[in-house]
Amino acid sequence: MFVLRMFLLRQVRKSDQRSKPLPGYLIRRLPGIFEFLGRKPRLRRAASRLFINSFAYATSPRPRPFSMASDYTTWPGLTDRRFTGRHLPPVNQRHLPAEEDVVNLYRRPKDKETKSTDTSALFTFFAQWFTDSFLRSSRHEPGRNSSNHEIDLCQIYGLSAAKTEKLRSGQGGRLKSQLIDGEEYPMFLEPKIVGDELVVNEDFKGLHRESSLRPFVDAYPEDQRRLMFAVGLEYGNSTIGHTILNTVFLREHNRVADLLKVNYPDWHDERLFQTTRNVMIVLLLKLVVEDYIKHIAPFDFPLEVVPFIAEAERWNRSNWMSIEFDLLYRWHSLVPDHIGEGADRLTLYDPDKPDKNLVNNNKLVISRGIENLVAQMSRERAGRIGLLNTPEFLIGVAEAPTVRRMRAACLDSFNAYRKAFGLKPLTSFEQLTTNTEVRRRLEQHYRDIDDLEWYVGIFAEDYPDYRMMGPLMTTMVAYDAFTQALTNPLLARNVFNKNTFAEVGMDIITDTHSLQQMIARNSKSPGDVYASFRCDPGGK
Amino acid sequence: MFVLRMFLLRQVRKSDQRSKPLPGYLIRRLPGIFEFLGRKPRLRRAASRLFINSFAYATSPRPRPFSMASDYTTWPGLTDRRFTGRHLPPVNQRHLPAEEDVVNLYRRPKDKETKSTDTSALFTFFAQWFTDSFLRSSRHEPGRNSSNHEIDLCQIYGLSAAKTEKLRSGQGGRLKSQLIDGEEYPMFLEPKIVGDELVVNEDFKGLHRESSLRPFVDAYPEDQRRLMFAVGLEYGNSTIGHTILNTVFLREHNRVADLLKVNYPDWHDERLFQTTRNVMIVLLLKLVVEDYIKHIAPFDFPLEVVPFIAEAERWNRSNWMSIEFDLLYRWHSLVPDHIGEGADRLTLYDPDKPDKNLVNNNKLVISRGIENLVAQMSRERAGRIGLLNTPEFLIGVAEAPTVRRMRAACLDSFNAYRKAFGLKPLTSFEQLTTNTEVRRRLEQHYRDIDDLEWYVGIFAEDYPDYRMMGPLMTTMVAYDAFTQALTNPLLARNVFNKNTFAEVGMDIITDTHSLQQMIARNSKSPGDVYASFRCDPGGK
Repeated sequence: MFVLRMFLLRQVRKSDQRSKPLPGYLIRRLPGIFEFLGRKPRLRRAASRLFINSFAYATSPRPRPFSMASDYTTWPGLTDRRFTGRHLPPVNQRHLPAEEDVVNLYRRPKDKETKSTDTSALFTFFAQWFTDSFLRSSRHEPGRNSSNHEIDLCQIYGLSAAKTEKLRSGQGGRLKSQLIDGEEYPMFLEPKIVGDELVVNEDFKGLHRESSLRPFVDAYPEDQRRLMFAVGLEYGNSTIGHTILNTVFLREHNRVADLLKVNYPDWHDERLFQTTRNVMIVLLLKLVVEDYIKHIAPFDFPLEVVPFIAEAERWNRSNWMSIEFDLLYRWHSLVPDHIGEGADRLTLYDPDKPDKNLVNNNKLVISRGIENLVAQMSRERAGRIGLLNTPEFLIGVAEAPTVRRMRAACLDSFNAYRKAFGLKPLTSFEQLTTNTEVRRRLEQHYRDIDDLEWYVGIFAEDYPDYRMMGPLMTTMVAYDAFTQALTNPLLARNVFNKNTFAEVGMDIITDTHSLQQMIARNSKSPGDVYASFRCDPGGK
Repeated sequence: MFVLRMFLLRQVRKSDQRSKPLPGYLIRRLPGIFEFLGRKPRLRRAASRLFINSFAYATSPRPRPFSMASDYTTWPGLTDRRFTGRHLPPVNQRHLPAEEDVVNLYRRPKDKETKSTDTSALFTFFAQWFTDSFLRSSRHEPGRNSSNHEIDLCQIYGLSAAKTEKLRSGQGGRLKSQLIDGEEYPMFLEPKIVGDELVVNEDFKGLHRESSLRPFVDAYPEDQRRLMFAVGLEYGNSTIGHTILNTVFLREHNRVADLLKVNYPDWHDERLFQTTRNVMIVLLLKLVVEDYIKHIAPFDFPLEVVPFIAEAERWNRSNWMSIEFDLLYRWHSLVPDHIGEGADRLTLYDPDKPDKNLVNNNKLVISRGIENLVAQMSRERAGRIGLLNTPEFLIGVAEAPTVRRMRAACLDSFNAYRKAFGLKPLTSFEQLTTNTEVRRRLEQHYRDIDDLEWYVGIFAEDYPDYRMMGPLMTTMVAYDAFTQALTNPLLARNVFNKNTFAEVGMDIITDTHSLQQMIARNSKSPGDVYASFRCDPGGK
């Protein structure tokens, strides 16, 4: 039975190996087929299960013999999750180009952004906000991380029970919040540099490690620091995407808590809070699978969080975020040069127009409001994931450190990872990409395809327009995402029920499938909300 | 397929429900059948797999919706293992007798020890030493524990990497040790009470939390404290069993490290240590399954650590030690009134003969030596697990606190647990036990069988002579033991191989099946070693 199933899954996956596009007649029909599937609950469920398992079985299940703790198998390396995990053992690759040359492979030529097919800038910010919560490699201690290794919505709840405490209002299960011009936001953190010390509002002392928070405060325009919010993670104010999504989820938390309170008037603050949190984590999981990953899948495949899908599966093993998952998710090329046009035009970072920056700009969020910005982000296409498409601003602050980390981790080659994740190794750069400029540069730096570094290869792979990334990146991101999101304890057979979420919470979970819904029900003009990971420039 | 297998397993388990003994013709034949099985590797493996799964599927797999964190489902309750787990939600049982009356149900009448059929006192001490390493409920914070939730041999390695460091010699992968009269022992801890402070040898500062160590030092005879050893856990000197087994495993560690060093001369201390630890943890798992649990099983069923047995199983889920596992393992009745006769006669605790005490007596271990004491323990029968058989000395210090904890945890009834673990609830005290004295006293305290408390019921259940405990206790201990020992990461498909243990280590693992072997190969007169969990008074 298991063997038969594995054979079937292999067949599905084999169709995925090729970077060649599907034949035209299929491409034309698949959107219709998927739409049909999406309307048939049982078919949709079966198709989702097959889709998810086809990736979850791409490689062997955890535990891995190695982590970043050491180059051979040790007990701390098998058990201490403060060390980052790793899929393949370290290898000293030879014949590597200089780091600087590798970094340059990512640089987007000035004013030559390559746009994605139909991915919105909202997707870009959601990806960052979502993954920053569990991919928490330490900046200072190589091989270490501060991740909880779970999707736990620490973006709004903080990294530990003690930190959560500081963010709670202590009333009605709510999170602390304030109204600014009638709109709900987190409280202000009020960071100040006194002497050489960083101090924050007394209520939020200890919410972040000072050394972790400090760089984000230093980078924030001094006259705007009073607008930084107290949220779960230290970089929660660093882009308008973080601020928008933290605010949306905070509003939803308080909305759900209020609903529970009405329905269960004898529940105290603690029970209201904890039950709301249970609901919120599952809402996030649903949005991730049914809205976000759905968009990553070709033709917006109608994915579903199949109840208890992990129950009988060999991939249902303790989570452990790997260094590869952390590095492959650095989709800097998704960041567009600008969002919108004319007076509304926003840029990533322009020192001359700080009011229009996407980074460190809570003022923009407060003045324009969530709905307005989300709609603008939904109408702008993101950059296309790939080489030669990382914005200049991110080359130094993001791409160079990533390449440095990849090298320090002694990752195995691109072809070694293809083999490990069930794909045939490539035999030439021609198989990798038809982009002659990319091929020329790779051939200049690497003796042959077997020397190609993994981190470079996954961004160099060709892929057709209806995909968002190449076969190896797709497989690896899907493997780690599915096997670590769908193993969440809240989705387990004994837990996913009315006792855990209350009837009211269960209904909300059942009815929620998109970020659009969540923003709309917290908006004063729900009909005007437009939030989409699939970019439609004419979207409402 | 899964359904069919579950049906088969149910059939096996049904035969286990009854407290009635098997028919005589089977009883006479089973030992022979099992011995035959034991000699046929493939049959033995298949039989072991069936045996293990029959218990591992007795109830639904983890995760549980509740832990001791709260009475309803919360995120910390699902993820924070500093809270103790629990199998069933809390219940306020009514009509309960006074705690004191319950405690009295356990008291062994003076000089009326009930002996087990064929279990040795060595088994008693191994059980304590083994379980004290992962059942670490906090004495001071109800619902909390300090367990790593893994079988990690923290008895000799300590509870964290920083503590392990203090116990390592830093040379050749060895643990710190000393020779006393030519025999290897751990180093001395040298605890001293200075003013009101507890100080230990500088080398071992921070090895234990002072508040955890203090009661054990206070209880130790003051003139003997200089003989307390520096070992992994704070109670590592509290019985001669702890001292003996810590010493045996320390000697084996250093023996294996030396062997690895000879075979891999270019390995540094760290690699030698870590690889030795990998080997040692698996050796412990092998002894536990193939020697210790084998003896618990009827007629010493030839159990085997089946390679990768957990791989495809739904019970392969993250470990979480439950309050029930912790409480059911309090086999105080196993402790015999005395061990041996005449001049060698040892008693649990006699203030008039401190030299002959089983508690706080490293002097005895050092003077008599490991082999001598182990042989004496192997020749003495343990007490029989059940009510009315806990030694007087343990009533106040062990049984009363256990009953208090059971009550504080609001555990569900005996019958509720029978149902949860796949056994039919009982309808009368007659079904529970044929012991008229026990029945009379239970009927006096409990209105009817549905009121019977779980902790009392599991010790009151009848069982035939070829078993060691009743059906519910057997099922629950086997469920938690198998699903938490065999999920050890060192046994996983990607890990259990020569890379992890080195060829030398792999051979040692393959060849080791008993504590007898481990003691013998560290002994100067291996031929004289007699170590057995099955008591044979005439044993060599």
